[in-house]
Amino acid sequence: MKVICPGSFDPVTNGHLDVFKRAAQIADEVTVAVLVNRTKSGLFSVDERMEILREVTSSLPNVRVDSFHGLLVDYCREHEIQAIVKGLRAISDFDYELQMAQMNYRLADVETLFVSTNPQFSFLSSSLIKEISRYGGDVEGLVPQAVLERLPAKFSDTM
Amino acid sequence: MKVICPGSFDPVTNGHLDVFKRAAQIADEVTVAVLVNRTKSGLFSVDERMEILREVTSSLPNVRVDSFHGLLVDYCREHEIQAIVKGLRAISDFDYELQMAQMNYRLADVETLFVSTNPQFSFLSSSLIKEISRYGGDVEGLVPQAVLERLPAKFSDTM
Amino acid sequence: MKVICPGSFDPVTNGHLDVFKRAAQIADEVTVAVLVNRTKSGLFSVDERMEILREVTSSLPNVRVDSFHGLLVDYCREHEIQAIVKGLRAISDFDYELQMAQMNYRLADVETLFVSTNPQFSFLSSSLIKEISRYGGDVEGLVPQAVLERLPAKFSDTM
Amino acid sequence: MKVICPGSFDPVTNGHLDVFKRAAQIADEVTVAVLVNRTKSGLFSVDERMEILREVTSSLPNVRVDSFHGLLVDYCREHEIQAIVKGLRAISDFDYELQMAQMNYRLADVETLFVSTNPQFSFLSSSLIKEISRYGGDVEGLVPQAVLERLPAKFSDTM
Amino acid sequence: MKVICPGSFDPVTNGHLDVFKRAAQIADEVTVAVLVNRTKSGLFSVDERMEILREVTSSLPNVRVDSFHGLLVDYCREHEIQAIVKGLRAISDFDYELQMAQMNYRLADVETLFVSTNPQFSFLSSSLIKEISRYGGDVEGLVPQAVLERLPAKFSDTM
Amino acid sequence: MKVICPGSFDPVTNGHLDVFKRAAQIADEVTVAVLVNRTKSGLFSVDERMEILREVTSSLPNVRVDSFHGLLVDYCREHEIQAIVKGLRAISDFDYELQMAQMNYRLADVETLFVSTNPQFSFLSSSLIKEISRYGGDVEGLVPQAVLERLPAKFSDTM
Repeated sequence: MKVICPGSFDPVTNGHLDVFKRAAQIADEVTVAVLVNRTKSGLFSVDERMEILREVTSSLPNVRVDSFHGLLVDYCREHEIQAIVKGLRAISDFDYELQMAQMNYRLADVETLFVSTNPQFSFLSSSLIKEISRYGGDVEGLVPQAVLERLPAKFSDTM
Repeated sequence: MKVICPGSFDPVTNGHLDVFKRAAQIADEVTVAVLVNRTKSGLFSVDERMEILREVTSSLPNVRVDSFHGLLVDYCREHEIQAIVKGLRAISDFDYELQMAQMNYRLADVETLFVSTNPQFSFLSSSLIKEISRYGGDVEGLVPQAVLERLPAKFSDTM
Repeated sequence: MKVICPGSFDPVTNGHLDVFKRAAQIADEVTVAVLVNRTKSGLFSVDERMEILREVTSSLPNVRVDSFHGLLVDYCREHEIQAIVKGLRAISDFDYELQMAQMNYRLADVETLFVSTNPQFSFLSSSLIKEISRYGGDVEGLVPQAVLERLPAKFSDTM
Repeated sequence: MKVICPGSFDPVTNGHLDVFKRAAQIADEVTVAVLVNRTKSGLFSVDERMEILREVTSSLPNVRVDSFHGLLVDYCREHEIQAIVKGLRAISDFDYELQMAQMNYRLADVETLFVSTNPQFSFLSSSLIKEISRYGGDVEGLVPQAVLERLPAKFSDTM
Repeated sequence: MKVICPGSFDPVTNGHLDVFKRAAQIADEVTVAVLVNRTKSGLFSVDERMEILREVTSSLPNVRVDSFHGLLVDYCREHEIQAIVKGLRAISDFDYELQMAQMNYRLADVETLFVSTNPQFSFLSSSLIKEISRYGGDVEGLVPQAVLERLPAKFSDTM
Repeated sequence: MKVICPGSFDPVTNGHLDVFKRAAQIADEVTVAVLVNRTKSGLFSVDERMEILREVTSSLPNVRVDSFHGLLVDYCREHEIQAIVKGLRAISDFDYELQMAQMNYRLADVETLFVSTNPQFSFLSSSLIKEISRYGGDVEGLVPQAVLERLPAKFSDTM
């Protein structure tokens, strides 16, 4: 089975990494794909996010990193990917994700497999990481080392 | 009983249409009303949305189409409408809608009647329709024919 | 429109009464119907519950009280009732009620109209009333006078 | 990947069948396993349930039917099953299932993959099927033919 | 125990005031703190909000009003505040607030105490108050007198 | 402030213990109280549960252990306890607990303070512990040592 883990990953957190590892254990090939949003610039550029993702997944041999623009199901069809793997953290994820899952199945028979993330990362999100880092809060243990090293430079001139 | 189905309807989906039909079966007169938001322009203009709504409700004799600006309860009072009819798709609708329902009852004794939409439309939303259409995805069966015909022209120059 | 408010009403609370009043305002005829459960005896007998319901709805001329056994949709078909009216208090009501609503629509085209109950009764339930009364707690203001008078006798010999 | 779809299946519904088919598409081998509860007798015996499950999954070559007693993770370990596949219908499923998923991962590294069921079966449950059938309601289209044929005999002497 | 009630309070509602009173009953000292958002100007300036907060909490001797910018946990550490007190109105509050609570505990051992607000204010929010006031709707009973007096001037030139 | 942590604690888990510790940090005196249910016998007797609770809270000097029967608010009034402290694990806790909190406040002005439990215990419950232990599953790290030692004897003759 070929699966995809799509997301903005701006930046990737240890919660995302937990989902990649779970996906790598159940699938033959995992694509971690950065969704490119042309109308919104992130904290990290798409190239930086892919570079970081390659670093943090380097120990997972069946994971490749890519980016995509447009409909996720089109990317899946093109690359013969059968399923999307998403982490479910909380109830508020559930509704939107279920909606997207049913739409993606209808559009292109692409299945969505939800995995429960490790509860110790259940309160994590990329935007929370950015908010804490902006004010000098400590996010060690919440993001991979590759993100931890790059965060200070991002906020050096914003305060 | 006179009821109202308010919304942006940008564009109307088969899920909305299902709610209109349910409202038309329980009420004597149904007003489908486009909420005009002066600070945000939609994909379809208010006039286009009303034109489409008239087309898709033409077979429901007790349904009329209108638009309004300001407080919904003021419109209800003016037109002697006793109740608002809303479709409940998912849990995330629930909280906000319950809040609005209690406020509208307090402000003007206008009741809100929630109907469960047909489960096959539970994953539908206007914004999802727009996102899929923008990238050329197929939304046949999810929106009325009147919307399906007008969607391609809306995105011809945006890609 | 003819509607039904089904329930165990063992005993009826001020939250139920709020739903009956809302139903009486939007419908031509309201049936308040006690669901008879032959395998479980309640605190109040079905006859007592109907007697209390008749008392507390006596000021609502378009409300009648009845009891039923079996499928609710069969009762609706027989009495030409088009819709079920239910109060939504909380999220935990939502899921089960939505499930029942979709099933009843599928079985017999009977619509379910959910109304938001008055928030001051949102924490009320018949079982909570019984639990508090059992230990001598004060439920004045939470149940109609007709229930308040009958509760002490029910618990006189159980402590 | 070897996966398991555990449940009571008393009786199996079209919603369960939808989950089996989704599991059969993503996994190499699927075990549909009836959880044996020694303290509660069901409407159908465990043998009947397994017989029905074999009938309704006969067209899915990589599905086998079994029963188990005790901890699900022990069964998984013994049969080298890596993941549990469950359908998520509604928010009330979510909490309990997430709890079980995290416990099963902790106990034995067994992953749980949640799939979104077809929305047209979102309101289905075995207990609802039994309740409707008990009173002669029509459940055609909601359960497989193999269940439909066996239901009348189950209720012939209970009314 | 020293606690903090943080928020935008643009403007403060009777729901917020209910939380302040509950906090003042359980804690020795309560700080009501306006979160300063430099990228978004509110309807009321931060100074106006603090002035209003001082007025409406003047009868609560152990409540002081302040404002802060940056991380809430830094403010707590600096002022030796042990816990954050938040009102829980609805399920949609729950997820985000739980996430923040777990993060704040991790960052600085600051506890979050959730109190259930008075159900009669469960449907209230600052943004709803602003929306209703903008169109001349009546919010008496929903906000303190100090807000009620200042609202008309805010919207005199926007319609 | 005097607070109470009520529950069945049959048996106490590390999630409960986390709540006791949080309560002990914010309150002057904490009563951990076993709710006695005369119609249902537990796995552990009330005396055993109290003995275990005393053992596991022995390092928290401001915690005392007791049991009660009847209404929680009556116990609070009698012992001048101002607030109940409860852990919120998941959304399904939320609704029932909010209902109880509003009722207890109405009955006796007793406040309820909800704390977010440590996410690593979010999937824990006494009944899950009993189910796993019954079949020989390993619950080390999920319950205190005092429970771990006593569990095997409880199930020695039930399999």
